[in-house]
Amino acid sequence: MAGPIKRLDHICIAVRDTAQALRFYRDVLGMEVAFSEDLPAEGVRATFLRAGDTLVELAEPLRDDCAMARFIARRGEGIQHVCFEVDDLARGMAELAARGAELLPGRHYQAVEGKRVAFTVHPKAANGVLVELCENA
Amino acid sequence: MAGPIKRLDHICIAVRDTAQALRFYRDVLGMEVAFSEDLPAEGVRATFLRAGDTLVELAEPLRDDCAMARFIARRGEGIQHVCFEVDDLARGMAELAARGAELLPGRHYQAVEGKRVAFTVHPKAANGVLVELCENA
Repeated sequence: MAGPIKRLDHICIAVRDTAQALRFYRDVLGMEVAFSEDLPAEGVRATFLRAGDTLVELAEPLRDDCAMARFIARRGEGIQHVCFEVDDLARGMAELAARGAELLPGRHYQAVEGKRVAFTVHPKAANGVLVELCENA
Repeated sequence: MAGPIKRLDHICIAVRDTAQALRFYRDVLGMEVAFSEDLPAEGVRATFLRAGDTLVELAEPLRDDCAMARFIARRGEGIQHVCFEVDDLARGMAELAARGAELLPGRHYQAVEGKRVAFTVHPKAANGVLVELCENA
């Protein structure tokens, strides 16, 4: 591809209860759980399932004052963000900015299971989609 | 995987104006357009971009009385559905039902560029995500 994006790494679904969501995404659709991790700084339990080359993340808020809880309170459960892989996170963000993207202020990196991720583009600048970038170790 | 789902085929973003959306998804992110097709029966212009092994669909309503236009009127632009590939559409749907999924009534197949697709599970039964299945030719 002509830009920094290599592939769709994962989509993230905000869910109220991981165990309940797994009954559909794992037990009915048959996707396998790749890994699950609590991210206390984000207030989120993140569970990733394999869907071919891509992952589906189920993100359950662990407290009321986190972004995921606010998303669910405002919109209900559903897709909260989409994450594209780049080779290098800082360079990928700089390249998007150079191509005219309006980036989210601050550089808030998180780490989960060998991924470094950062929310990069606000839904207002991406047709209603919160865009995250990630770099895989 | 233990179920009928092979991989995430595409995610669909409801957009008001394909040309405007392409300025971000094609020109900034750098994804390449794979194909674009007007689907008069659905009232949608569907443009698919490559994101590695997965596709990103931009779906623009061509008239006001279609599902995509109603989605945008109700929720704004954003992700309207997620599509998983199965080997055989009818068998995949039957297998989901056998595993306890509540399927959408009716079997409304569409075709786009060698894909047969069908909306299968209502967002209420899939944590806020409209789930489509597809079979690739």
